[in-house]
Amino acid sequence: MAPITNGRTLFNEIPSGFPEPGKTTVYDTSKTIDLENVPLNGGVLVKTLVLSADPYMRVQMREADIESYMPPFIVGQPLGVGKILRSERDGFKPGGYVYGLLDHAEYSLPSPDVPVFGIRVFNPEPGLQYSAYVGAGGMPGQTSYYGWKEYANAKAGETVFVSGGAGPVGSLVIQLAKQDGLKVIASAGSDEKVQFCKDVGADVVFNYKTTSTLDILRQEGPLNIYWDNVGGTTLDAAIENAANHARFLECGAISQYNSKDGVNMKNLDQIYARRITLYGFLISDLAPKWEEEFYKVIPKKLASGEFKFREDITTGLENSGQAIRDVQIGANTGKKVIVVAQE
Amino acid sequence: MAPITNGRTLFNEIPSGFPEPGKTTVYDTSKTIDLENVPLNGGVLVKTLVLSADPYMRVQMREADIESYMPPFIVGQPLGVGKILRSERDGFKPGGYVYGLLDHAEYSLPSPDVPVFGIRVFNPEPGLQYSAYVGAGGMPGQTSYYGWKEYANAKAGETVFVSGGAGPVGSLVIQLAKQDGLKVIASAGSDEKVQFCKDVGADVVFNYKTTSTLDILRQEGPLNIYWDNVGGTTLDAAIENAANHARFLECGAISQYNSKDGVNMKNLDQIYARRITLYGFLISDLAPKWEEEFYKVIPKKLASGEFKFREDITTGLENSGQAIRDVQIGANTGKKVIVVAQE
Repeated sequence: MAPITNGRTLFNEIPSGFPEPGKTTVYDTSKTIDLENVPLNGGVLVKTLVLSADPYMRVQMREADIESYMPPFIVGQPLGVGKILRSERDGFKPGGYVYGLLDHAEYSLPSPDVPVFGIRVFNPEPGLQYSAYVGAGGMPGQTSYYGWKEYANAKAGETVFVSGGAGPVGSLVIQLAKQDGLKVIASAGSDEKVQFCKDVGADVVFNYKTTSTLDILRQEGPLNIYWDNVGGTTLDAAIENAANHARFLECGAISQYNSKDGVNMKNLDQIYARRITLYGFLISDLAPKWEEEFYKVIPKKLASGEFKFREDITTGLENSGQAIRDVQIGANTGKKVIVVAQE
Repeated sequence: MAPITNGRTLFNEIPSGFPEPGKTTVYDTSKTIDLENVPLNGGVLVKTLVLSADPYMRVQMREADIESYMPPFIVGQPLGVGKILRSERDGFKPGGYVYGLLDHAEYSLPSPDVPVFGIRVFNPEPGLQYSAYVGAGGMPGQTSYYGWKEYANAKAGETVFVSGGAGPVGSLVIQLAKQDGLKVIASAGSDEKVQFCKDVGADVVFNYKTTSTLDILRQEGPLNIYWDNVGGTTLDAAIENAANHARFLECGAISQYNSKDGVNMKNLDQIYARRITLYGFLISDLAPKWEEEFYKVIPKKLASGEFKFREDITTGLENSGQAIRDVQIGANTGKKVIVVAQE
C-alpha cells in the first residue's frame, strides 16, 4: 500500500487570550505515512478514532521555558482513543484499543514512554461508545473519581457545591455525591447546562451568568465540600460560605486560564478561621491508587445508564482547532470529543 | 478585709481600623471586689499576674452577630496567667497557677466552663518566668507546636518559609524547623526583628518592608512548606514559589485583619497545578491530641534556653489598650505581655 496522507492539527502560535483556529492551531496535510512499513521501534502504530479537547490544553499553550505540571504543548498531544494497527510492544495487540496521549493526527506512533498519562490498553464495555473513554470513562471521569474518593471525606447529609457542574468532571462529581447522600448545589453557564445538572441529580442548580453565586451559597450553604473547577471569585464566595472543617477540592481554574489579571479575594483569612483544607491535586499522583478500581466500576455504570454523561461531538480532525477554542470559551454543550475516524 | 478596686480594661467600641486606647478600650476603676467574701459558685478566684495581647483579638472586636471562630470580644477575656486565691473547684488549689481566658481585670472569677481555650492548672518550670506561659509556653507556642507536628510533614533538607518569623508563633516554628533539619527562610518587619530570626537559627531572613518577598523566594525557593502568619500578597508570592506537593499551614492573616479590602491574587490556579495542600487550622481542634506532649516538651526547652523566645513587656493593666494596638500595628518587639501584678 502506498503512503497516505496523515492529517495533523499543529500548534502554530502561543495565543495571548483564547486560542483561535487557523492562528493558534493549523490543520496540515503535508505529511504522509506508510502504514505497512513505518518502523515501530518497539512501539505501536495507532489509528486515531476519537480525540479529546479539554480545558487543561490552554495551560500547555505557553513558552516552553515556563514550568508547569504539564509539558509544553509543542505539536499537540491530546488524549484520544485509537485502534492498534501494528505492534512490536508487549501487551499491545493489533486490533486492540488504546487510551492515552496520541499525536494530534490521524495516525500516530506513541512512544513506549509517553509522559504524564501514558497509554493503556482497554477492553471496550459492550454498549459504550469509544468516545466515552476520553470523557466520563477517561481523564475527566478519573479526575472526579480519584479526587472524590481521596479527599472529599463525604458524609450523608452534608452539602457540596460543584462549580462547572455540567462539564464532564463536574457532572460525574454530582452523581458521586448524590450516591453518597449529599445535598448538591451546582453552577453552570447556560440554561441548557443548568438543566443537565438537574438531570444528573443536583438539588440546587443556578446559572452563574444570571444569578449571584454569593446569594445562592448564602441561602443554601454552608458548604462542607467545594469541588472547584473554576477558581476566581467563585472560590472566594465558596470560602465565605464554608462550614467549619470544609474540604475544598482544587481541581481547576478555567476562569483564570485565559487572563493574566489576578482575582480580588476578600475571604482568604477564613481558610484558617474555619479550618478549611484546600487540596490541590492532579490525577497523575492518584492514578496508582485508584485507576484499577475506576476501570472496574465506572465504564459499567456508564454503559448501563446508571451514571449519565453528555458529549458534544465535532467531526473531522480539521475542525479540532475550533473544538479546542469552544472548550475554552464554554461554547460546548457536553464533553467535547473530536471523532476523527470510524474503525 | 474591705472591698478593693478591681481595675479592668473594657472593650468600649468597635474600631473601623486599628484599635485605639481610650476609644476602642478604656481603663475603668469603678468596680470593687471583696476578695475574702465574693461568692465562688463552684469556681475559683484568680489574681491576674500576666495578660497577653495577641493578633487574634482584632477578630473579636466586631458586632456580636457576625459569626467567627471566636466569640465576640464583649468585655475582654484575654489569655493570662493568674494565681489562685480561693477555690471551690476540684483540682484548683489556692496558691496554684492557672493559664487560660481570664477577665481583662486585676481579679477574676473564671467560670468552670470558659469557652474555647478553657483554663488549666500548670506547675511553673523552675527558672521560667510566668509570662512565658502566655507566649512560647502558651497559646502561640501551642499553635506552632500543634500545627508543625500535625501538618508540616517535614523532611530534612526541605525548605520552609515562615512569614512573621519574629513573632512568638513564627520564632518557635523556625526553631522546630531547624531541629528537623530544614532550610528556613523567614520574613519580619524591622531590622531588629530580622536579627531575632537569625538569632533563633533562620538561614535566610529578610525585611519584607525593604526587600521584595518575591525576589527572595525566587532565589531561595522552591518552598516545600509555607507557614503563613500574614496572608495577603505574601501568600500569593509563596504559591508562586511553591514546590510540587507543598504544604501550606494557614495560621493567620494579620495583613488583612484591619482592612476590608480584598487582596489581588495571581497564582491561585497553582494550588492544583502544583498539588499544594493548604491546611487552615486552629489549636482548639488539635489540643486534645498534642497538649500533654507540648507541656512535657516545651517549657523545659524554654527554661534551659534550648528554645529562645523574646518578650515585650507592658507594665500595668491601665496600659493594656496600647499593648493591644501595638500588636496590631506591629510595634511590639517580642511577644507582647502585660504584667499586671507581682505575686
